[in-house]
Amino acid sequence: MLKLYIGNKNYSSWSMRPWVLMRQAGIAFDEVMVRFDSFDADSDFKRALKDVNPVGKVPVLVDGDLAVWDTLAIAEYLAERFPDKALWPANPQARARARSVCAEMHAGFTALRGACPMNIEASLPEVGALAWRDKPGVRADVARLETMWGGLLQAHGGPMLFGDFSIADAYFAPVCMRLRSYGLPLSSAVRAYVDRVANLPGVAAWVQDALAEQDFLDFEEPYRLKR
Amino acid sequence: MLKLYIGNKNYSSWSMRPWVLMRQAGIAFDEVMVRFDSFDADSDFKRALKDVNPVGKVPVLVDGDLAVWDTLAIAEYLAERFPDKALWPANPQARARARSVCAEMHAGFTALRGACPMNIEASLPEVGALAWRDKPGVRADVARLETMWGGLLQAHGGPMLFGDFSIADAYFAPVCMRLRSYGLPLSSAVRAYVDRVANLPGVAAWVQDALAEQDFLDFEEPYRLKR
Repeated sequence: MLKLYIGNKNYSSWSMRPWVLMRQAGIAFDEVMVRFDSFDADSDFKRALKDVNPVGKVPVLVDGDLAVWDTLAIAEYLAERFPDKALWPANPQARARARSVCAEMHAGFTALRGACPMNIEASLPEVGALAWRDKPGVRADVARLETMWGGLLQAHGGPMLFGDFSIADAYFAPVCMRLRSYGLPLSSAVRAYVDRVANLPGVAAWVQDALAEQDFLDFEEPYRLKR
Repeated sequence: MLKLYIGNKNYSSWSMRPWVLMRQAGIAFDEVMVRFDSFDADSDFKRALKDVNPVGKVPVLVDGDLAVWDTLAIAEYLAERFPDKALWPANPQARARARSVCAEMHAGFTALRGACPMNIEASLPEVGALAWRDKPGVRADVARLETMWGGLLQAHGGPMLFGDFSIADAYFAPVCMRLRSYGLPLSSAVRAYVDRVANLPGVAAWVQDALAEQDFLDFEEPYRLKR
């Protein structure tokens, strides 16, 4: 059985991607939750991952004696291992575009990620409004999402970015969570996409688990003293 | 004919990856060099890319009316389009590992990248020695490269990370450039790998072009006032 190591569901945006991908696509796996305590070398978190992943991060997918780390590598591995699940778009051009936007996410959107860390349980519209007013980088990142998602939804006709659900939607699911938690302004077309993503069974299952966690981690909470 | 948009060869580490990959693998392409002037919205650089790439960055691979951006997406696209070139390792486990280390590079090694920006023409061993002394993150990044490369070279027997040349070597070629320019301390096994990468014909061709550029860009030169 595939095993996926993840962090706290409320906070770990990177863990969310492959979990949602597998759950939504109907790929069976065992989940191993490694709670974030700290990211110091001697933390329980790092110790739990020491023998699993040379990088000491989540997510990690373990398949027999093979460990695959990093969301993009996991996505590619799953796409190859489960070809019948059509995790990438079938059309080569659409597939190249899907990989481009996922890679863009992988190393980009730093302003949005920095100002609006994923925190599914929280509702922080005032923080979002301040970020929107004061941080041009946040506005630029959301503008890029508007262009990207708006263009793809139009080109492929929805409901997901490339028509049917694909890796790209799993990849942007945590971004959808941020846009909601921080109440950032969106066009109606993009807001409708965000809502459709939130309503995917795979995403809703993750959110339900996140809300049940009841964990509050100071270092993941730049904006709150308590829940 | 495939068209690859790149930045200055002396400085653009991201451009180097797909260029070296294609050149070394013998994939024909036309090169379009878009000189870095600045990255402001109204720069010549941004204007030249405006109609090519929605993100306004290099590298971009253009194949007919398809633009593929970001190095990882370009690598995957080329691997699919030229299956006979075996750009990824053939073994599924090795391939998953190769993708893991490339993805790790894609969003990581930020301390090394920040302190030691690629500058092929420069020789900056004193800057490197200071970074080594004062920046634990740089030491940690190099230690990770030692573990990763040392382990892979041992597992696959060299001469490249996964035996034969693959995307992974192209992906780490700019890192090899940094390690040399800044004279960072390396084990003999890893130093030998760095030298083998530098001597690959595809890498040597890029370096030769970089040395011929004679361009000096202040915003890429935190450590020098002139060549």
